[in-house]
Amino acid sequence: MANYNIYTHESYAPSASPMCYAQQYSSSHQSYGQSSSYGYSSALAPSYAPYFPPGTHPDIIRSFQMIDRDRSGFVDKNELQEVLSWGYQKFSLRTIRLLMFLFKNPTEPSRIGPVEFAALWNCLGQWRVIFERFDRDRSGRIDSMELRDALYSLGYAVPPSVLQALISKYDRGSEQNGQLNFDSFIECGMIVKGLTEKFKEKDPHYTGAATLTYDTFMAMIVPFLVS
Amino acid sequence: MANYNIYTHESYAPSASPMCYAQQYSSSHQSYGQSSSYGYSSALAPSYAPYFPPGTHPDIIRSFQMIDRDRSGFVDKNELQEVLSWGYQKFSLRTIRLLMFLFKNPTEPSRIGPVEFAALWNCLGQWRVIFERFDRDRSGRIDSMELRDALYSLGYAVPPSVLQALISKYDRGSEQNGQLNFDSFIECGMIVKGLTEKFKEKDPHYTGAATLTYDTFMAMIVPFLVS
Repeated sequence: MANYNIYTHESYAPSASPMCYAQQYSSSHQSYGQSSSYGYSSALAPSYAPYFPPGTHPDIIRSFQMIDRDRSGFVDKNELQEVLSWGYQKFSLRTIRLLMFLFKNPTEPSRIGPVEFAALWNCLGQWRVIFERFDRDRSGRIDSMELRDALYSLGYAVPPSVLQALISKYDRGSEQNGQLNFDSFIECGMIVKGLTEKFKEKDPHYTGAATLTYDTFMAMIVPFLVS
Repeated sequence: MANYNIYTHESYAPSASPMCYAQQYSSSHQSYGQSSSYGYSSALAPSYAPYFPPGTHPDIIRSFQMIDRDRSGFVDKNELQEVLSWGYQKFSLRTIRLLMFLFKNPTEPSRIGPVEFAALWNCLGQWRVIFERFDRDRSGRIDSMELRDALYSLGYAVPPSVLQALISKYDRGSEQNGQLNFDSFIECGMIVKGLTEKFKEKDPHYTGAATLTYDTFMAMIVPFLVS
């Protein structure tokens, strides 16, 4: 185990990830028309019963059903943007694309199914709690030091130069003045989360370093850039 | 020297880079009011004489002077978008941001000076030639195989999975149908160019692999994602 300062297993491995990724990669969709195990039926057509993990909050299920107007069992990026605005706020399409990229089902890369939707919704809820904890003056914005602390509390020890690069994006206009609203916080946080997860795949023993071929390096990064 | 297929010094090190990066990192701006070494004066105020590398095409100098309306000696992203539309076409702001990120002067990260402008303009000219060579039916678009060949001819041997990720971005709407116009080609190409240059910095002996710490990995990538 590397002992290079704080970037050890405990720090760069997100403590929050078990909640954020719960059941995301281990589940499968039941075919439509199959009744769900937790007995929700609602007033919708009985043939429409996308599978949600047991214990999914009824509000999440209801939101998914309401936005999935064509009863496809999936939501696209515009639907995701709309439905998240009901429970959270209107996220930029840039953030939405990033969320879809990180939570996508491998078999449906451009749409989000119920399992991914529940995981995404719960993850946002958890990050919202963190955001509010560090937004001490209730301004709806956090600064770079609060971003650092918020990411740290989520399990990510981000190098100062990376924090600087992240915050610089929001430091260009006079309006935001280097402060992040919840949308920007989620965008920054998801970039950190996604890249850290990718790095961990190549450093399974948490040594703090990974040897990458050119092909591997490119294949790890490019999907982020074009998401 | 690694012998893993084609990803050797000659292939992933861009053959085009000497032209694209000519004088970009070795020059400095002269102070305004200083006469330039190649004797251009024009009808502009004599106190306005941003330094261009000797041999810069007069059209490039003239374009820069025309767009730099406040005589600051720099152009911002909106000015860059406008001036490139005179010589090439109107690029998306996304592509413009990427170009500014890759060609920026470290001391002026949000603006482009004359040296960077000349390097950028020349690089685009070179890539335009390549694009037209592979756009064999003169449709103004190239497909994924032509993209692969075009990047290869520029010195980049891009893994198939990376090509697929790049092209997938333009395969979503029915309008582009997986084909790239010059704007998209430049965006894709600059992503490949920028990441390859970053990787080469960590693999100076062209072994084909690099060992990266978590901090280094994050610091290499995040600036691309937030540019």
